Amino acid sequence: MTTKPLRIGLIGTGFMGRAHSNAYRRVDQFFDSDHRIELRAVCARTEDAVREFAGRWGFDSHETDWRRLVERDDIDAVDICTPNDSHLEIAVAAAANGKMVLCEKPLARTAAEGAQMVAAVEQAGVPNMVWYNYRRTPAVTLARQLIDEERLGRIYHYRAQFLQDWTIAEDLPQGGAGLWRLDAAAAGSGVTGDLLAHCIDTALWLNGSIQEVSAMTETFVKQRHHNLTGKVEPVGIDDACAFLARFQNGSLGTFESTRYARGHKALYTFEINGEHASIAWDLHDLHRLQYFDHRDDSRTRGWRSIHVTDSDMPYMDKWWVPGLQIGYEHTFVHQVADFLQGLDRGETVAPTFRDAQETQQVCEAVLESAKDRSWHAVAQDR
Amino acid sequence: MTTKPLRIGLIGTGFMGRAHSNAYRRVDQFFDSDHRIELRAVCARTEDAVREFAGRWGFDSHETDWRRLVERDDIDAVDICTPNDSHLEIAVAAAANGKMVLCEKPLARTAAEGAQMVAAVEQAGVPNMVWYNYRRTPAVTLARQLIDEERLGRIYHYRAQFLQDWTIAEDLPQGGAGLWRLDAAAAGSGVTGDLLAHCIDTALWLNGSIQEVSAMTETFVKQRHHNLTGKVEPVGIDDACAFLARFQNGSLGTFESTRYARGHKALYTFEINGEHASIAWDLHDLHRLQYFDHRDDSRTRGWRSIHVTDSDMPYMDKWWVPGLQIGYEHTFVHQVADFLQGLDRGETVAPTFRDAQETQQVCEAVLESAKDRSWHAVAQDR
Amino acid sequence: MTTKPLRIGLIGTGFMGRAHSNAYRRVDQFFDSDHRIELRAVCARTEDAVREFAGRWGFDSHETDWRRLVERDDIDAVDICTPNDSHLEIAVAAAANGKMVLCEKPLARTAAEGAQMVAAVEQAGVPNMVWYNYRRTPAVTLARQLIDEERLGRIYHYRAQFLQDWTIAEDLPQGGAGLWRLDAAAAGSGVTGDLLAHCIDTALWLNGSIQEVSAMTETFVKQRHHNLTGKVEPVGIDDACAFLARFQNGSLGTFESTRYARGHKALYTFEINGEHASIAWDLHDLHRLQYFDHRDDSRTRGWRSIHVTDSDMPYMDKWWVPGLQIGYEHTFVHQVADFLQGLDRGETVAPTFRDAQETQQVCEAVLESAKDRSWHAVAQDR
Amino acid sequence: MTTKPLRIGLIGTGFMGRAHSNAYRRVDQFFDSDHRIELRAVCARTEDAVREFAGRWGFDSHETDWRRLVERDDIDAVDICTPNDSHLEIAVAAAANGKMVLCEKPLARTAAEGAQMVAAVEQAGVPNMVWYNYRRTPAVTLARQLIDEERLGRIYHYRAQFLQDWTIAEDLPQGGAGLWRLDAAAAGSGVTGDLLAHCIDTALWLNGSIQEVSAMTETFVKQRHHNLTGKVEPVGIDDACAFLARFQNGSLGTFESTRYARGHKALYTFEINGEHASIAWDLHDLHRLQYFDHRDDSRTRGWRSIHVTDSDMPYMDKWWVPGLQIGYEHTFVHQVADFLQGLDRGETVAPTFRDAQETQQVCEAVLESAKDRSWHAVAQDR
Repeated sequence: MTTKPLRIGLIGTGFMGRAHSNAYRRVDQFFDSDHRIELRAVCARTEDAVREFAGRWGFDSHETDWRRLVERDDIDAVDICTPNDSHLEIAVAAAANGKMVLCEKPLARTAAEGAQMVAAVEQAGVPNMVWYNYRRTPAVTLARQLIDEERLGRIYHYRAQFLQDWTIAEDLPQGGAGLWRLDAAAAGSGVTGDLLAHCIDTALWLNGSIQEVSAMTETFVKQRHHNLTGKVEPVGIDDACAFLARFQNGSLGTFESTRYARGHKALYTFEINGEHASIAWDLHDLHRLQYFDHRDDSRTRGWRSIHVTDSDMPYMDKWWVPGLQIGYEHTFVHQVADFLQGLDRGETVAPTFRDAQETQQVCEAVLESAKDRSWHAVAQDR
Repeated sequence: MTTKPLRIGLIGTGFMGRAHSNAYRRVDQFFDSDHRIELRAVCARTEDAVREFAGRWGFDSHETDWRRLVERDDIDAVDICTPNDSHLEIAVAAAANGKMVLCEKPLARTAAEGAQMVAAVEQAGVPNMVWYNYRRTPAVTLARQLIDEERLGRIYHYRAQFLQDWTIAEDLPQGGAGLWRLDAAAAGSGVTGDLLAHCIDTALWLNGSIQEVSAMTETFVKQRHHNLTGKVEPVGIDDACAFLARFQNGSLGTFESTRYARGHKALYTFEINGEHASIAWDLHDLHRLQYFDHRDDSRTRGWRSIHVTDSDMPYMDKWWVPGLQIGYEHTFVHQVADFLQGLDRGETVAPTFRDAQETQQVCEAVLESAKDRSWHAVAQDR
Repeated sequence: MTTKPLRIGLIGTGFMGRAHSNAYRRVDQFFDSDHRIELRAVCARTEDAVREFAGRWGFDSHETDWRRLVERDDIDAVDICTPNDSHLEIAVAAAANGKMVLCEKPLARTAAEGAQMVAAVEQAGVPNMVWYNYRRTPAVTLARQLIDEERLGRIYHYRAQFLQDWTIAEDLPQGGAGLWRLDAAAAGSGVTGDLLAHCIDTALWLNGSIQEVSAMTETFVKQRHHNLTGKVEPVGIDDACAFLARFQNGSLGTFESTRYARGHKALYTFEINGEHASIAWDLHDLHRLQYFDHRDDSRTRGWRSIHVTDSDMPYMDKWWVPGLQIGYEHTFVHQVADFLQGLDRGETVAPTFRDAQETQQVCEAVLESAKDRSWHAVAQDR
Repeated sequence: MTTKPLRIGLIGTGFMGRAHSNAYRRVDQFFDSDHRIELRAVCARTEDAVREFAGRWGFDSHETDWRRLVERDDIDAVDICTPNDSHLEIAVAAAANGKMVLCEKPLARTAAEGAQMVAAVEQAGVPNMVWYNYRRTPAVTLARQLIDEERLGRIYHYRAQFLQDWTIAEDLPQGGAGLWRLDAAAAGSGVTGDLLAHCIDTALWLNGSIQEVSAMTETFVKQRHHNLTGKVEPVGIDDACAFLARFQNGSLGTFESTRYARGHKALYTFEINGEHASIAWDLHDLHRLQYFDHRDDSRTRGWRSIHVTDSDMPYMDKWWVPGLQIGYEHTFVHQVADFLQGLDRGETVAPTFRDAQETQQVCEAVLESAKDRSWHAVAQDR
């Protein structure tokens, strides 16, 4: 089989730069496609660091100016792993140069930015995708399959939370490498764009559109030393956010996220209650799915803890044998694999920029609701 | 030791009538007090049934009209286990006759009714108590102790839910014995007064007052056969309710309750996240408390599953030996024991009618918020 | 309905005396029978203590010499809650006086003693029962029902453990009240008779007879202060015991018990693996049963955590409502209820002395195997 | 930094061939060393298949005769991933050619074979290692650290099990690719060498030497179709094996393994009970460690569920961020990393062939004990 190259230009070498690079390196040992990844170039500002990164991950070359990277002829796809404040500019430039664009989530800082990005890739007609990786956790994809098979019946409730505890210390600074998520200018928002965006993306995928929301946000630590200004500055992000939601299918949603939930590192959880069955999942044990089916014989009915490692479960035929779990990073491998197979078939692979823009609009409604203390409809301009 | 009798008159022989009777029967084998329970009379409308109940539970006599019971000279305390729509009338009459009044929760259908009940018992100067029994689960009382010992530090989050699934079937009727909880006239509200009232009572006890709320409610099944009218009638109760809250201590609250969460029978859960430590509990494993302490050595830090059965844990010195769990009904025994010991000392035992009225006011704000889709302050007229 | 009295004479007022008394006091409020318990007399050596006990639990009278109790005309059934070294003598005397005999487990210190006890009650023709109470845990009875319904298919494995940690401290003395379980003269053996006897009784009930065993025992603390002699004495009991077993149905068994398993208070667990399904249970969460059914759809197959609180589960129609758990003490109530209903029907209720003697014979084979380090057949003289 | 190549020749392209190749491909992106892996050659019998494997995993060349591979001058280390019956021959030949030898577990079919392999690598003076990968699960390495820090105190108990259910179907054949584990000639033994060998390796590492054992084995399905002979043949392996053990440190051990435990895919568990603390782990949730410390404050004492994903936990600083779990395959990456770093320092990395031979000797004693139904001492000829 002859394969076509997909030449990647990666921008950003932080945590996500590593996670994506790892996915690119691994995909072809486990998944088949007519396309084969070539790691052509990686870009970051600091020459020494980006050179070391390129060497470690096997990129052929490196750049220190993303504008040069997006203009290179030997790049097919630009992968944006930079902080949120540069997503728009890079994506627009990449699309203008006819590149496919893969963008780390959230799509943008605001719905307005997101709208420009959607327009850019759609006008350019380039394949595009946003890295809402948790969809591709085998257990989460299995949840989607069970819903598609109509096992749950009418849906009554959807609840999700994403709980962390890493910003409780008051002397943690904001801004700069590793801490831009605390800086409103760089991140756009706090937990809403960083964590709830994941919850919302999954919810939209599993349970359909959200019509309206009522939210509250809080910033527990009001000011922090800012690494970029060198001064103590007000904190502009939301440390915590919770909201009520109504879905178009008539079900009720509750969502909560915080970085002040002592004892939880990255506890993303969701639960769906349907007429006949319920599903629950959490990221701390991502290889399991909890399932309850009311149609079971009444005396042996109970929540089933499914160890999602068998070969008939999503993606798992590609990995090891039953009982042997995979981890966080594999969700990115699955996303690359699906993207490549989409290219094989000439088909769009979700979530596209347009899909991710719907999440952006929910986030926008949430933040506005928290600000003016009223219910907000979610813009439905898909 | 000579003991003084506390002569009980119980009104209502349903589920709660049984639970209270059981508590009265057991308390003196396990707890010491200067007062001893005497089961003097029980009242229910159907003569045969109430006679059978009296025989089974050891009441000396029975009545079929509660007005006669509250007027009897040989009764010290009236215990109200009837549906919510009669709490006010009975309590007022009992207080007027100088009886102590013990009332099953919720105190009343509305805050207005509750206010009259508080006034009645306080004007009469009679001891009074509401059966928010879950406070006396050993694990919950332990949670309170840990909070009082300031182990958690500043509180950031409180979340609670009470999930059931018993009303999903559309052909379940409303109204009458066993089903009055679905009848708005009898119950006042649906899950808000029945289930969230428990969550709110515990929250107020553990985390202090709630300032304001934003709520949504839903009635999934819009009409049901009514057992009293014999016709299909609109359903007036809330099948589900969720609300956001702000506590006076600055923490954020999220609350949710429903009878449409497939797979959950009586899953009351709460979690509190503090600066240093977090606590979680659930009613389906009520003999355990989950505790996370960030001050633990970092490499062995994790959520601790405390099996609350040791003799240095609340109430547990009275029961069996470490490892052997107690159950639901014991929470009522503890409440009776505490009430008796309060009489011994001449002290009020919480939750009094006044304490329970605060829960009533939160419920009122929740229901009003859901109705007019806006944030509501909780009346703070304690 | 007229009811016949069953006049109880209880001997022993320790932990088990309380547990049995509690069961007697509660049974008729929850279970129906033609027989009604009357607590006629209780016996213990210390007059003040036994008088207090009689008052607390409602016994009509008390004795300080068990021989007087077993001879009283107004006693129908003698309940033996004394240390193991007096079971034989009391049971034989009670049977000789024509009393029904209920005996706390283990039946005896040795199989030889047990055989005499079986002979005594069978020659006297009196109803008899041994308090292996865990059979009547609803989850354990449910396990038996599932096995009887042939849901598991051919059985391959049975494993059980009973882990405690209360004797690790070297300065814990042996002998006397509360500590006779550490005294070989009083107890007969250590964990084998005290804890493994429970595991064996359940195993025989659920999985049939055991043919042969290979065991090891250990006494970790070789000498302890003896409360009766006042001197440091060698410890004669087994602190820990583990054994391999072959059942008559061809399945393999592994059993282990210890009082040196730090972190476990009374962790009795068992698991049964069959061709089609498996079952697991543990005493620390006694209201749950774990069930795995291989016939489930493969993508939603997992261990089911059954919350054994619904009304179609064993005994649970008598208690509260779904979701509300019962505890340890209820197992004794169930045993009394079954005994009474057995009297109603004129039928034997298991485990009889003869049933319990089979456990005794397994224990004997285990201890002998540990002593001479070889496989031992279990005497099959039923 | 200049790095030295470590040129790998891999023999065997089954499940383990994949797992090792994956480790080789990934190690240098996450771990630093002066040595860098070069995948020089891979060997398997079928030309087309091995060519495809070489292409997929990035080997420079392939062979179909392992004798040619072990003689190649451009190979530094031979990695043996073939069925057990060829370990001896290949290892001896590789050592004779001066190659380092990495051998998949178990070392050999018998202790006699193992002894020859130890002699071969030691006489040749070549670095050698056996892939008991579970030692390098971060949670298991953390367990070792806690033991080394003497947190547990005197050890009383060690228990381990490895439960699977994949051979229950009677029509599953034996022999040949993927099924050689059921063929005694190829595997040497059944669950003892395949599964208990893992349990024993970990036990020796965590708890020291085993002195003696008493075992039982069973073959539930007595004959199966044999893929190599084409006929129904007797099954020569042990389907299940359980044994009692005494460790040199005075603690008691219980071990069990089976492929007939319905509901368990690869449930390797161990638990260690010490005077002060206990540890438990299982492979189905390999990213967690359970820890109980009796020195905790008594009212908040409980089993701690440690989510082993923080950067101060073994190996985890190399991967992602707290809360994000790794999986099965990472244990092999860790083993390669440790081997490379051992080469950097000129030090032996455990488990060597000699270390693995101790496991072999325990297995031998176990199988002999099961055969002659008596306790067997473990040969201690290290």
